[in-house]
Amino acid sequence: MKILRSIFSVQKYIKQVRGKNKTIGFVPTMGALHQGHLKLVKEARRENAIVIVSIFVNPVQFGPSEDFKKYPRQIKQDSLLLDDEKVDVVFYPTVEMVYPRGYLTYVNVESVSEGLCGAYRPGHFKGVATVVAKLLNIIMPDAIYLGQKDGQQVAVLKRMVNDLNFPVKVKVVKTVREKDGLAMSSRNRYLNDEERQQAPVLWQALRSAQDMIRSGEYNSGKVVTAIMTHITEKSSAKVQYVCIVDKNTLEPLKECRKDAMIAVAVYFGSTRLIDNIII
Amino acid sequence: MKILRSIFSVQKYIKQVRGKNKTIGFVPTMGALHQGHLKLVKEARRENAIVIVSIFVNPVQFGPSEDFKKYPRQIKQDSLLLDDEKVDVVFYPTVEMVYPRGYLTYVNVESVSEGLCGAYRPGHFKGVATVVAKLLNIIMPDAIYLGQKDGQQVAVLKRMVNDLNFPVKVKVVKTVREKDGLAMSSRNRYLNDEERQQAPVLWQALRSAQDMIRSGEYNSGKVVTAIMTHITEKSSAKVQYVCIVDKNTLEPLKECRKDAMIAVAVYFGSTRLIDNIII
Repeated sequence: MKILRSIFSVQKYIKQVRGKNKTIGFVPTMGALHQGHLKLVKEARRENAIVIVSIFVNPVQFGPSEDFKKYPRQIKQDSLLLDDEKVDVVFYPTVEMVYPRGYLTYVNVESVSEGLCGAYRPGHFKGVATVVAKLLNIIMPDAIYLGQKDGQQVAVLKRMVNDLNFPVKVKVVKTVREKDGLAMSSRNRYLNDEERQQAPVLWQALRSAQDMIRSGEYNSGKVVTAIMTHITEKSSAKVQYVCIVDKNTLEPLKECRKDAMIAVAVYFGSTRLIDNIII
Repeated sequence: MKILRSIFSVQKYIKQVRGKNKTIGFVPTMGALHQGHLKLVKEARRENAIVIVSIFVNPVQFGPSEDFKKYPRQIKQDSLLLDDEKVDVVFYPTVEMVYPRGYLTYVNVESVSEGLCGAYRPGHFKGVATVVAKLLNIIMPDAIYLGQKDGQQVAVLKRMVNDLNFPVKVKVVKTVREKDGLAMSSRNRYLNDEERQQAPVLWQALRSAQDMIRSGEYNSGKVVTAIMTHITEKSSAKVQYVCIVDKNTLEPLKECRKDAMIAVAVYFGSTRLIDNIII
């Protein structure tokens, strides 16, 4: 497994591979890898001749009061995990390479970026779209692998790839969960024991909502209220939002029908957790 | 010469060509072709195995009060000209193909898009950057050919290509002029006889300014005043702006030194003309 740090070295590698007509699967990450990331890597490995994983904590997608500085960085441990998955290349650039002096260009997916997490993290999805546009141009993969856990990110990036005609397939991989249902996340490590014990309440509430809908309750307002009640009664979490939206456009739905996504964000202390379920 | 109307048909063509390892030169246009465009095409022809020209009047780069509807469209005449230049493919999509229902993604080059023409045409360069990003992803050329006449467009697109890591070379081709110095432009046809006779005043004023600087007058304020006086005394044109800026960042310069661009925009009646000179 190669660890490449410069854009130029990746481009050179890609050129060689392309000449041999090999397909490239790409997994963008911010490192601090868990089983959710590794599921993406396994999918990419299964479907492509070459697998490239990027590890880059992207400053542009963090707000000024967010956890950019304390976001976990563990390149050695991550590299060992990726080597075990038979990844071909880890692209691990510096911030200065990705955003050199005088950097000015941003990609924005309007509307889809603005609700849900976007409402509480202004500029977040512009940062995500911009860095992924750059990575797609550098790596020119045949397929990019994204986790469903970041449901809004999936919607934003699918829209961007489609709108800007990037020649890449977007593959969305099911959320990987701990045995108790908690969605894998690099931020779970911030939870203290009590919070960690309560955290599965997110998924439990989403599953109960699914049951509610299956038994005929399509009214979004009622389902949202049930989820909020469930979470606040069974945990110390503070709910940031519970929304029922179209999974592609992220437009709010009054009725939970086909292609509805129920998305939640809560705080346990200062740790923000998100999860979602597709109906 | 093929005229391809769908994105899919272009992508299919590109795939075949790429397999044969042929270089692709790309000239984006809005049609209504003149010798300036054809100079770009000739350069592309000279340097590449395959030449692709797009003809697309991009609604997103026109303001609501601008000339989108009346912008000249003459695909038959344009096709004949391009066929004469041995162009391989004309990509001539419809607006609905380029911006399908639900389109939401825009590329913005901050700062460089905001001065000069950008100040009077808000959103114009966002429209330019967005459509060129799309065309680059569809056509995947080795080189894109741009005319220096649109000096700010050149600066915006160079910055975008660099910032977003598009794997393409940007080739800038000198402005082609009528014998009397008027820069070729699809909008020159809007001028009446008197305006047409006066229009070379733009280039004359820029040349006089160049002489002034060569003889030691570096003060931008004085040079700008001289240009304004020249234009208003010798024509009926209304000056929109005269600016001396760094040709790459478009930041205003107090002194006309290396890499300075003097850019002018004027109105003859309702016809807006621009020109520039690099010092």
